[in-house]
Amino acid sequence: MNYIKNPGKIEEESFRIIESEMGEHNFGERELKIVKRVIHTTADFEYKDLLYIREGAIDAAITLLKKGGITIYADTNMITAGISKKMLNALNCKVISYVRDEEIAAIAKEKGITRSMAGIEKAVSEGIEFFLFGNAPTALYKLKELIEEKKAAPKFVVAAPVGFVGAAQSKEDFEKLPVPMITVRGRKGGSTVTTAIVNALLYML
Amino acid sequence: MNYIKNPGKIEEESFRIIESEMGEHNFGERELKIVKRVIHTTADFEYKDLLYIREGAIDAAITLLKKGGITIYADTNMITAGISKKMLNALNCKVISYVRDEEIAAIAKEKGITRSMAGIEKAVSEGIEFFLFGNAPTALYKLKELIEEKKAAPKFVVAAPVGFVGAAQSKEDFEKLPVPMITVRGRKGGSTVTTAIVNALLYML
Repeated sequence: MNYIKNPGKIEEESFRIIESEMGEHNFGERELKIVKRVIHTTADFEYKDLLYIREGAIDAAITLLKKGGITIYADTNMITAGISKKMLNALNCKVISYVRDEEIAAIAKEKGITRSMAGIEKAVSEGIEFFLFGNAPTALYKLKELIEEKKAAPKFVVAAPVGFVGAAQSKEDFEKLPVPMITVRGRKGGSTVTTAIVNALLYML
Repeated sequence: MNYIKNPGKIEEESFRIIESEMGEHNFGERELKIVKRVIHTTADFEYKDLLYIREGAIDAAITLLKKGGITIYADTNMITAGISKKMLNALNCKVISYVRDEEIAAIAKEKGITRSMAGIEKAVSEGIEFFLFGNAPTALYKLKELIEEKKAAPKFVVAAPVGFVGAAQSKEDFEKLPVPMITVRGRKGGSTVTTAIVNALLYML
Protein backbone atom coordinates (compact mmCIF):
# COMPACT_ATOMS: atom_id res chain seq x y z
CA MET A 1 0.00 0.00 0.00
CA ASN A 2 1.02 3.54 -0.64
CA TYR A 3 1.58 5.37 2.63
CA ILE A 4 4.58 7.10 4.26
CA LYS A 5 6.47 4.56 6.36
CA ASN A 6 9.39 6.73 7.52
CA PRO A 7 8.60 8.09 11.02
CA GLY A 8 11.02 11.02 10.59
CA LYS A 9 9.31 12.08 7.35
CA ILE A 10 5.84 11.70 8.92
CA GLU A 11 6.79 14.00 11.78
CA GLU A 12 8.40 16.58 9.49
CA GLU A 13 5.34 16.72 7.25
CA SER A 14 3.02 16.88 10.31
CA PHE A 15 4.85 19.90 11.70
CA ARG A 16 4.69 21.59 8.30
CA ILE A 17 0.89 21.11 8.20
CA ILE A 18 0.48 22.34 11.78
CA GLU A 19 2.49 25.47 11.07
CA SER A 20 0.52 26.21 7.91
CA GLU A 21 -2.84 25.81 9.68
CA MET A 22 -2.18 27.40 13.03
CA GLY A 23 -2.33 30.97 11.76
CA GLU A 24 -0.90 34.03 13.47
CA HIS A 25 0.87 33.78 16.80
CA ASN A 26 3.46 35.51 18.95
CA PHE A 27 5.46 32.48 20.04
CA GLY A 28 9.24 32.56 20.03
CA GLU A 29 11.17 29.77 18.34
CA ARG A 30 11.42 27.50 21.38
CA GLU A 31 7.87 28.19 22.58
CA LEU A 32 6.63 27.32 19.11
CA LYS A 33 8.35 23.93 19.28
CA ILE A 34 6.38 23.10 22.41
CA VAL A 35 3.07 24.36 21.02
CA LYS A 36 3.51 22.44 17.77
CA ARG A 37 4.38 19.21 19.56
CA VAL A 38 1.27 19.49 21.75
CA ILE A 39 -0.92 20.07 18.69
CA HIS A 40 0.84 17.14 16.97
CA THR A 41 -0.11 14.91 19.92
CA THR A 42 -3.74 16.02 20.19
CA ALA A 43 -4.70 17.27 16.71
CA ASP A 44 -6.32 20.08 18.68
CA PHE A 45 -5.40 23.64 17.66
CA GLU A 46 -7.11 25.07 20.74
CA TYR A 47 -3.89 24.34 22.63
CA LYS A 48 -2.36 27.29 20.78
CA ASP A 49 -4.52 29.53 23.00
CA LEU A 50 -4.40 27.42 26.17
CA LEU A 51 -0.68 26.91 26.67
CA TYR A 52 0.98 29.28 29.12
CA ILE A 53 4.78 29.17 29.05
CA ARG A 54 6.19 31.39 31.79
CA GLU A 55 9.18 33.50 30.87
CA GLY A 56 12.32 31.69 31.97
CA ALA A 57 10.54 28.34 32.30
CA ILE A 58 12.16 26.75 29.24
CA ASP A 59 15.61 27.85 30.44
CA ALA A 60 14.86 26.48 33.93
CA ALA A 61 13.87 23.07 32.54
CA ILE A 62 16.82 22.90 30.16
CA THR A 63 19.29 23.87 32.90
CA LEU A 64 18.02 21.01 35.09
CA LEU A 65 18.06 18.47 32.26
CA LYS A 66 21.51 19.52 31.04
CA LYS A 67 22.95 19.33 34.55
CA GLY A 68 21.87 15.69 34.40
CA GLY A 69 21.44 13.10 37.13
CA ILE A 70 18.03 14.42 38.17
CA THR A 71 14.81 12.59 38.98
CA ILE A 72 11.56 13.89 37.51
CA TYR A 73 8.28 13.11 39.26
CA ALA A 74 5.10 12.47 37.22
CA ASP A 75 1.57 12.05 38.55
CA THR A 76 0.73 9.21 36.12
CA ASN A 77 2.42 6.11 34.76
CA MET A 78 1.25 7.11 31.28
CA ILE A 79 3.63 10.07 31.49
CA THR A 80 6.54 7.95 32.70
CA ALA A 81 5.83 5.53 29.81
CA GLY A 82 5.58 8.32 27.22
CA ILE A 83 8.71 10.35 27.89
CA SER A 84 11.65 9.44 25.67
CA LYS A 85 13.82 7.07 27.72
CA LYS A 86 16.56 7.23 25.11
CA MET A 87 17.00 10.94 25.67
CA LEU A 88 16.55 10.79 29.45
CA ASN A 89 19.13 8.01 29.73
CA ALA A 90 21.59 10.00 27.65
CA LEU A 91 21.24 12.81 30.23
CA ASN A 92 21.50 10.35 33.14
CA CYS A 93 18.03 11.52 34.23
CA LYS A 94 14.98 9.43 35.13
CA VAL A 95 11.23 9.87 35.53
CA ILE A 96 9.24 8.13 38.24
CA SER A 97 5.72 8.00 39.66
CA TYR A 98 4.57 6.66 43.01
CA VAL A 99 0.88 6.67 42.16
CA ARG A 100 0.68 2.85 41.83
CA ASP A 101 3.11 2.20 44.70
CA GLU A 102 1.70 -0.16 47.39
CA GLU A 103 3.31 1.80 50.22
CA ILE A 104 1.82 5.06 48.93
CA ALA A 105 -1.64 3.45 48.66
CA ALA A 106 -1.40 2.44 52.34
CA ILE A 107 -0.27 5.93 53.44
CA ALA A 108 -3.04 7.58 51.40
CA LYS A 109 -5.67 5.32 52.97
CA GLU A 110 -4.37 5.99 56.47
CA LYS A 111 -4.33 9.79 55.96
CA GLY A 112 -7.59 9.93 54.01
CA ILE A 113 -5.93 11.65 51.03
CA THR A 114 -5.53 10.62 47.38
CA ARG A 115 -2.63 8.41 46.30
CA SER A 116 -1.65 11.30 44.01
CA MET A 117 -1.25 13.58 47.04
CA ALA A 118 0.70 10.99 49.02
CA GLY A 119 2.97 10.51 46.00
CA ILE A 120 3.78 14.24 45.94
CA GLU A 121 4.60 14.25 49.66
CA LYS A 122 7.06 11.41 49.15
CA ALA A 123 8.64 12.98 46.05
CA VAL A 124 9.12 16.31 47.87
CA SER A 125 10.63 14.53 50.90
CA GLU A 126 13.16 13.00 48.51
CA GLY A 127 14.23 16.41 47.22
CA ILE A 128 12.70 16.17 43.75
CA GLU A 129 12.46 19.60 42.05
CA PHE A 130 10.99 18.79 38.60
CA PHE A 131 7.27 17.90 38.58
CA LEU A 132 4.80 16.83 35.90
CA PHE A 133 1.03 16.87 36.34
CA GLY A 134 -1.25 15.46 33.67
CA ASN A 135 -4.03 14.10 35.76
CA ALA A 136 -4.53 14.99 39.39
CA PRO A 137 -5.69 18.43 40.63
CA THR A 138 -5.33 17.10 44.19
CA ALA A 139 -1.63 16.46 43.58
CA LEU A 140 -1.13 19.95 42.18
CA TYR A 141 -2.91 21.46 45.22
CA LYS A 142 -0.70 19.36 47.50
CA LEU A 143 2.45 20.73 45.86
CA LYS A 144 1.02 24.26 46.18
CA GLU A 145 0.45 23.70 49.92
CA LEU A 146 3.99 22.42 50.39
CA ILE A 147 5.41 25.42 48.51
CA GLU A 148 3.38 27.85 50.65
CA GLU A 149 4.58 26.07 53.80
CA LYS A 150 8.18 26.46 52.50
CA LYS A 151 8.57 22.68 52.46
CA ALA A 152 8.98 22.51 48.66
CA ALA A 153 10.73 24.78 46.16
CA PRO A 154 10.34 23.18 42.71
CA LYS A 155 12.58 24.50 39.97
CA PHE A 156 10.27 23.48 37.09
CA VAL A 157 6.65 22.32 36.86
CA VAL A 158 4.36 21.25 34.03
CA ALA A 159 0.84 21.75 35.38
CA ALA A 160 -1.65 20.15 32.98
CA PRO A 161 -4.30 18.20 34.93
CA VAL A 162 -7.35 17.59 32.72
CA GLY A 163 -10.97 17.47 33.74
CA PHE A 164 -14.17 18.96 35.01
CA VAL A 165 -13.77 19.04 38.79
CA GLY A 166 -10.90 21.09 40.15
CA ALA A 167 -8.57 20.85 37.15
CA ALA A 168 -9.02 24.38 35.78
CA GLN A 169 -9.15 25.93 39.25
CA SER A 170 -6.07 24.04 40.46
CA LYS A 171 -4.06 25.35 37.51
CA GLU A 172 -5.36 28.90 37.91
CA ASP A 173 -4.40 28.85 41.62
CA PHE A 174 -1.01 27.28 40.94
CA GLU A 175 -0.22 29.88 38.30
CA LYS A 176 -0.19 32.56 41.03
CA LEU A 177 2.97 31.04 42.50
CA PRO A 178 6.31 32.39 41.24
CA VAL A 179 7.46 28.98 39.99
CA PRO A 180 9.01 28.35 36.54
CA MET A 181 6.10 26.58 34.87
CA ILE A 182 4.26 25.55 31.75
CA THR A 183 0.51 25.15 32.18
CA VAL A 184 -2.58 24.45 30.10
CA ARG A 185 -5.31 26.90 31.05
CA GLY A 186 -8.88 25.70 31.40
CA ARG A 187 -10.15 22.12 31.49
CA LYS A 188 -7.90 20.58 28.86
CA GLY A 189 -4.56 18.86 29.39
CA GLY A 190 -3.70 15.26 30.21
CA SER A 191 -0.86 12.77 30.17
CA THR A 192 -0.22 12.94 26.42
CA VAL A 193 -0.07 16.75 26.54
CA THR A 194 2.35 16.76 29.49
CA THR A 195 4.48 14.13 27.76
CA ALA A 196 4.57 16.17 24.55
CA ILE A 197 5.76 19.25 26.45
CA VAL A 198 8.61 17.33 28.10
CA ASN A 199 9.64 15.57 24.90
CA ALA A 200 9.70 18.96 23.11
CA LEU A 201 12.09 20.23 25.81
CA LEU A 202 14.27 17.13 25.46
CA TYR A 203 14.43 17.55 21.67
CA MET A 204 15.80 21.07 22.21
CA LEU A 205 18.97 19.66 23.81
CA MET B 1 -7.44 23.77 51.48
CA ASN B 2 -10.97 23.18 50.40
CA TYR B 3 -11.09 20.81 47.46
CA ILE B 4 -12.61 17.38 46.81
CA LYS B 5 -10.10 14.71 47.76
CA ASN B 6 -12.21 11.59 47.15
CA PRO B 7 -11.41 10.23 43.65
CA GLY B 8 -14.76 8.40 43.44
CA LYS B 9 -16.67 11.61 44.18
CA ILE B 10 -14.55 13.59 41.68
CA GLU B 11 -15.36 11.11 38.91
CA GLU B 12 -19.07 11.01 39.76
CA GLU B 13 -19.32 14.80 39.70
CA SER B 14 -17.28 14.97 36.46
CA PHE B 15 -19.65 12.60 34.69
CA ARG B 16 -22.63 14.61 35.92
CA ILE B 17 -21.13 17.80 34.45
CA ILE B 18 -20.30 16.08 31.16
CA GLU B 19 -23.84 14.73 30.82
CA SER B 20 -25.36 18.14 31.57
CA GLU B 21 -23.16 19.91 29.00
CA MET B 22 -23.05 17.42 26.16
CA GLY B 23 -26.55 18.17 24.92
CA GLU B 24 -28.67 15.93 22.71
CA HIS B 25 -27.40 12.59 21.50
CA ASN B 26 -28.58 9.19 20.32
CA PHE B 27 -26.17 7.00 22.25
CA GLY B 28 -27.43 3.91 24.03
CA GLU B 29 -26.53 3.35 27.69
CA ARG B 30 -23.28 1.49 27.04
CA GLU B 31 -22.17 3.71 24.15
CA LEU B 32 -22.75 6.73 26.39
CA LYS B 33 -20.39 5.30 29.03
CA ILE B 34 -17.61 5.17 26.44
CA VAL B 35 -18.31 8.64 25.07
CA LYS B 36 -18.43 10.18 28.55
CA ARG B 37 -15.17 8.55 29.61
CA VAL B 38 -13.41 9.84 26.49
CA ILE B 39 -14.70 13.37 27.17
CA HIS B 40 -13.66 12.97 30.82
CA THR B 41 -10.11 12.14 29.65
CA THR B 42 -9.78 14.94 27.09
CA ALA B 43 -12.20 17.69 28.25
CA ASP B 44 -13.05 17.82 24.56
CA PHE B 45 -16.74 17.54 23.67
CA GLU B 46 -15.94 17.15 19.97
CA TYR B 47 -15.40 13.44 20.67
CA LYS B 48 -19.18 13.16 20.96
CA ASP B 49 -19.31 13.61 17.17
CA LEU B 50 -16.07 11.76 16.31
CA LEU B 51 -16.56 8.43 18.05
CA TYR B 52 -17.83 5.62 15.87
CA ILE B 53 -18.93 2.54 17.81
CA ARG B 54 -19.88 -0.22 15.39
CA GLU B 55 -22.97 -2.23 16.24
CA GLY B 56 -21.90 -5.39 18.04
CA ALA B 57 -18.44 -4.03 18.87
CA ILE B 58 -19.09 -3.57 22.60
CA ASP B 59 -20.47 -7.12 22.82
CA ALA B 60 -17.45 -8.45 20.92
CA ALA B 61 -15.02 -6.76 23.31
CA ILE B 62 -16.92 -7.82 26.41
CA THR B 63 -17.14 -11.43 25.21
CA LEU B 64 -13.36 -11.56 24.77
CA LEU B 65 -12.64 -9.91 28.12
CA LYS B 66 -15.14 -12.08 29.99
CA LYS B 67 -13.74 -15.25 28.46
CA GLY B 68 -10.48 -14.18 30.11
CA GLY B 69 -6.92 -15.29 29.54
CA ILE B 70 -6.47 -13.13 26.46
CA THR B 71 -3.58 -10.90 25.41
CA ILE B 72 -4.36 -7.43 24.10
CA TYR B 73 -1.89 -5.70 21.79
CA ALA B 74 -1.36 -1.91 21.99
CA ASP B 75 0.69 0.25 19.64
CA THR B 76 2.11 2.40 22.48
CA ASN B 77 3.48 1.87 25.97
CA MET B 78 1.36 4.78 27.15
CA ILE B 79 -1.71 2.63 26.47
CA THR B 80 -0.27 -0.41 28.27
CA ALA B 81 0.54 1.90 31.23
CA GLY B 82 -2.91 3.48 31.26
CA ILE B 83 -5.22 0.48 31.15
CA SER B 84 -6.44 -0.64 34.58
CA LYS B 85 -4.16 -3.53 35.60
CA LYS B 86 -6.37 -4.29 38.58
CA MET B 87 -9.30 -5.08 36.29
CA LEU B 88 -7.21 -6.85 33.63
CA ASN B 89 -5.58 -9.06 36.26
CA ALA B 90 -8.98 -9.95 37.71
CA LEU B 91 -9.94 -11.22 34.23
CA ASN B 92 -6.60 -13.00 33.80
CA CYS B 93 -5.97 -10.81 30.73
CA LYS B 94 -2.91 -8.76 29.87
CA VAL B 95 -1.93 -5.92 27.55
CA ILE B 96 1.42 -5.77 25.76
CA SER B 97 3.29 -3.68 23.20
CA TYR B 98 6.35 -4.60 21.17
CA VAL B 99 7.05 -1.07 19.98
CA ARG B 100 10.09 -0.62 22.28
CA ASP B 101 11.27 -4.22 21.87
CA GLU B 102 14.93 -4.53 20.75
CA GLU B 103 14.19 -7.52 18.51
CA ILE B 104 11.36 -5.64 16.81
CA ALA B 105 13.59 -2.62 16.26
CA ALA B 106 16.12 -4.86 14.47
CA ILE B 107 13.45 -6.52 12.31
CA ALA B 108 11.96 -3.13 11.39
CA LYS B 109 15.35 -1.79 10.37
CA GLU B 110 16.09 -4.88 8.27
CA LYS B 111 12.72 -4.73 6.48
CA GLY B 112 12.64 -0.93 6.13
CA ILE B 113 9.31 -0.67 7.94
CA THR B 114 8.28 1.12 11.14
CA ARG B 115 8.68 -0.59 14.51
CA SER B 116 4.91 -0.19 14.88
CA MET B 117 4.37 -2.30 11.74
CA ALA B 118 6.87 -4.95 12.84
CA GLY B 119 5.12 -5.11 16.22
CA ILE B 120 1.78 -5.82 14.54
CA GLU B 121 3.30 -8.62 12.44
CA LYS B 122 4.65 -10.27 15.58
CA ALA B 123 1.38 -9.85 17.50
CA VAL B 124 -0.63 -11.36 14.63
CA SER B 125 1.83 -14.27 14.35
CA GLU B 126 1.15 -14.98 18.02
CA GLY B 127 -2.60 -15.22 17.46
CA ILE B 128 -3.59 -11.97 19.19
CA GLU B 129 -7.15 -10.91 18.25
CA PHE B 130 -7.71 -7.72 20.30
CA PHE B 131 -5.83 -4.62 19.04
CA LEU B 132 -5.50 -1.04 20.25
CA PHE B 133 -4.17 1.81 18.10
CA GLY B 134 -3.61 5.24 19.60
CA ASN B 135 -0.62 6.39 17.64
CA ALA B 136 0.53 4.71 14.46
CA PRO B 137 -1.34 4.87 11.14
CA THR B 138 1.35 2.58 9.68
CA ALA B 139 0.46 -0.11 12.23
CA LEU B 140 -3.23 0.18 11.42
CA TYR B 141 -2.46 -0.11 7.69
CA LYS B 142 -0.32 -3.17 8.42
CA LEU B 143 -3.20 -4.87 10.25
CA LYS B 144 -5.51 -3.97 7.35
CA GLU B 145 -3.08 -5.60 4.90
CA LEU B 146 -2.87 -8.76 7.00
CA ILE B 147 -6.69 -8.94 7.23
CA GLU B 148 -7.03 -8.55 3.45
CA GLU B 149 -4.43 -11.28 2.95
CA LYS B 150 -6.48 -13.50 5.33
CA LYS B 151 -3.50 -13.70 7.67
CA ALA B 152 -5.31 -11.89 10.50
CA ALA B 153 -8.91 -11.95 11.73
CA PRO B 154 -9.13 -9.64 14.76
CA LYS B 155 -12.22 -9.95 16.92
CA PHE B 156 -12.06 -6.40 18.30
CA VAL B 157 -10.11 -3.26 17.37
CA VAL B 158 -9.90 0.27 18.77
CA ALA B 159 -8.59 2.39 15.90
CA ALA B 160 -7.66 5.84 17.19
CA PRO B 161 -4.33 6.99 15.74
CA VAL B 162 -3.96 10.75 16.09
CA GLY B 163 -2.25 13.14 13.74
CA PHE B 164 -1.88 15.02 10.52
CA VAL B 165 -0.26 12.54 8.14
CA GLY B 166 -2.17 9.35 7.45
CA ALA B 167 -4.13 9.15 10.70
CA ALA B 168 -7.57 10.19 9.40
CA GLN B 169 -7.12 8.29 6.13
CA SER B 170 -5.93 5.12 7.89
CA LYS B 171 -9.02 5.11 10.08
CA GLU B 172 -11.36 5.83 7.17
CA ASP B 173 -9.83 2.97 5.20
CA PHE B 174 -9.89 0.60 8.15
CA GLU B 175 -13.55 1.37 8.82
CA LYS B 176 -14.45 -0.26 5.49
CA LEU B 177 -13.45 -3.66 6.88
CA PRO B 178 -16.19 -5.73 8.55
CA VAL B 179 -14.33 -5.88 11.89
CA PRO B 180 -15.94 -5.17 15.29
CA MET B 181 -14.40 -1.77 16.02
CA ILE B 182 -14.50 1.53 17.80
CA THR B 183 -12.83 4.37 15.94
CA VAL B 184 -12.30 8.12 16.24
CA ARG B 185 -13.05 9.77 12.91
CA GLY B 186 -10.78 12.53 11.65
CA ARG B 187 -7.42 13.63 12.99
CA LYS B 188 -8.09 13.31 16.71
CA GLY B 189 -7.45 10.30 18.94
CA GLY B 190 -4.36 9.24 20.86
CA SER B 191 -3.19 7.01 23.67
CA THR B 192 -5.32 8.59 26.38
CA VAL B 193 -8.44 8.30 24.19
CA THR B 194 -7.77 4.63 23.39
CA THR B 195 -7.09 3.92 27.06
CA ALA B 196 -10.33 5.62 28.10
CA ILE B 197 -12.32 3.48 25.64
CA VAL B 198 -10.82 0.25 27.00
CA ASN B 199 -11.23 1.28 30.64
CA ALA B 200 -14.90 2.15 29.93
CA LEU B 201 -15.36 -1.39 28.55
CA LEU B 202 -13.64 -2.90 31.60
CA TYR B 203 -15.87 -0.88 33.97
CA MET B 204 -18.93 -2.42 32.26
CA LEU B 205 -17.95 -5.89 33.52
